[in-house]
Amino acid sequence: MGEKTDKKNILVSELRQDIVSGDWVVIATGRAKRPDDFANFQRIKDDKGIENCPFEDPVTSGQEPDVLIYYKTDGEWTLRVFPNKYPSFSKGKASDSLSEGPYFAMPGVGFHELIVTRDHHRQLATMDIMEVAEVFDAYQNRYLELMNKKNVNYIAIFHNHGKEAGASLSHPHSQLTAIPVIAPYIKLELDGAEQYYRSNKHCVYCVMAEYESDEKKRVVFENEDFIAFCPFASRDAFEVWIMPKKHSSYFERINDDQKIKLAEVFKKSLGAIYKALNDPPYNFYIHTSPCDGKDYPHFHWHIEILPHTSTWAGFELDTGIEVSTIQPEVAAEFLRKQI
Amino acid sequence: MGEKTDKKNILVSELRQDIVSGDWVVIATGRAKRPDDFANFQRIKDDKGIENCPFEDPVTSGQEPDVLIYYKTDGEWTLRVFPNKYPSFSKGKASDSLSEGPYFAMPGVGFHELIVTRDHHRQLATMDIMEVAEVFDAYQNRYLELMNKKNVNYIAIFHNHGKEAGASLSHPHSQLTAIPVIAPYIKLELDGAEQYYRSNKHCVYCVMAEYESDEKKRVVFENEDFIAFCPFASRDAFEVWIMPKKHSSYFERINDDQKIKLAEVFKKSLGAIYKALNDPPYNFYIHTSPCDGKDYPHFHWHIEILPHTSTWAGFELDTGIEVSTIQPEVAAEFLRKQI
Repeated sequence: MGEKTDKKNILVSELRQDIVSGDWVVIATGRAKRPDDFANFQRIKDDKGIENCPFEDPVTSGQEPDVLIYYKTDGEWTLRVFPNKYPSFSKGKASDSLSEGPYFAMPGVGFHELIVTRDHHRQLATMDIMEVAEVFDAYQNRYLELMNKKNVNYIAIFHNHGKEAGASLSHPHSQLTAIPVIAPYIKLELDGAEQYYRSNKHCVYCVMAEYESDEKKRVVFENEDFIAFCPFASRDAFEVWIMPKKHSSYFERINDDQKIKLAEVFKKSLGAIYKALNDPPYNFYIHTSPCDGKDYPHFHWHIEILPHTSTWAGFELDTGIEVSTIQPEVAAEFLRKQI
Repeated sequence: MGEKTDKKNILVSELRQDIVSGDWVVIATGRAKRPDDFANFQRIKDDKGIENCPFEDPVTSGQEPDVLIYYKTDGEWTLRVFPNKYPSFSKGKASDSLSEGPYFAMPGVGFHELIVTRDHHRQLATMDIMEVAEVFDAYQNRYLELMNKKNVNYIAIFHNHGKEAGASLSHPHSQLTAIPVIAPYIKLELDGAEQYYRSNKHCVYCVMAEYESDEKKRVVFENEDFIAFCPFASRDAFEVWIMPKKHSSYFERINDDQKIKLAEVFKKSLGAIYKALNDPPYNFYIHTSPCDGKDYPHFHWHIEILPHTSTWAGFELDTGIEVSTIQPEVAAEFLRKQI
């Protein structure tokens, strides 16, 4: 009996290794879903209406005072940034130790800000390129303001879209937390990039960007400066990474031209996800070098977009190995069709 | 104005470090929830009824043939183990490389089994101690059978309870996957335990077990052989870890007396979670040493129980830092009251 007809020998999955972190993912092959199976991932539309939205008029609704506002020429605001009224990190003395017995702890000092765009219904996937570029400009602006503050060693910029992805308000908003520790996931990537450089004398992200651009099959969209692709070891269905093609360790050094190029690739990618999955919930975030006073020449900043199509169950929580139900090559091909 | 009345200076959170992995968690303090806030975490009761349950009569419903069955003296089965009809890992040749360009991949070879108890409605939290001990006996039995198979380097044993926690069927069942790679989360713990031992000449888990047993405030339940406590750096509300008090690297070496002692501590802990959160969804799993032919003298096997009360959003996905909304000391006190 041939191998292909022997049920016992049909390959049901692939174990793929993340080239940076060394982590493993399982990509279903035998029972992989088709792109069409993801057509019903529309987020819960739990919107309580503009009249109850605190971000329509943040001043009247009692938000913290703005730290940054962008205006149109007609005087209407387009984007504003203010501290989160319910922060996870706040001002305080980092030196107060909260350690106990063998354990180490410290106060959650730092900053926690909200970056809010004007239109209640207009999400990043459906904005114009220049509107998206303005959002990246605001991220950079706040990053530069906070990166040298005392006790700030990492700045995490992220966005939750849809209730299932953790957005408590449907009005589009990103979040920025400036924290005293280097995030574990960043440390994993910094260590992986450093180790790859030592072994191969190349930046691992540059190697990926170049390989994917040549190979094409996992590319979602690219222009001269940026490339978006479904990573070889995708953790989630329709996961997309976006990175500068030229080596760059620090997001905050992006210039205005590059911001527009980034906005184009980002908008096309997120727009493709929006169409392919019918307005799904998603998260995205920027991974960039720490701002702890050290240089990170071997790191390469990038954005990761994670559509929220599944929840971690026992196997993932136990092992840290994610199971993805669609091959990234198939996901990328389907995303390209939406552009 | 005193610090306590100055809103800007009130500590809103604590950053606690996991003593083994070095990872960080945020424990909300300023806006921490009270135990009563978790009373409504009842899982979705999506049961389609016994008549449609494939695990009531696995043979008739067309499951794979049993690899282990336990019977009562009256001849009725109490527990059975059979291969998963829809495995994530299956038989095959591990040597077939699926690598591509700079990336490494391999076939998902291994074993994927289901451990099913007889009663459709009787979950582990509500079983008798001897019934729970039988489940651990089955885990051990299958572990011993598979640990020396070719290409098996780690065996993950886990349990999903409730739809939100990833259980596709409500009939109680655990899962076992025997896989060719060492799970990333295990590697993190192995490395952390090794490093702690080198620095401190003690097993980090022994240090924790002893400290918690002396300190009492985070203990949920303990007997002579095992201790259950809410970890100092809890990632989730009401997270509980259970570990042998005497150093032991290998779950599969547990003896019958110890299985009963474990079952008592496990049943009391899971029962307390069941009462405190009103039958919530949860996951639990065993973390034990790899079975890759090496010894792991500095590791210490344990069980982690994670009630499913939240979903990772952007900050957690970005950073790997979990935000827990109740202090483990408060959670443990509330769990103790349920016993």
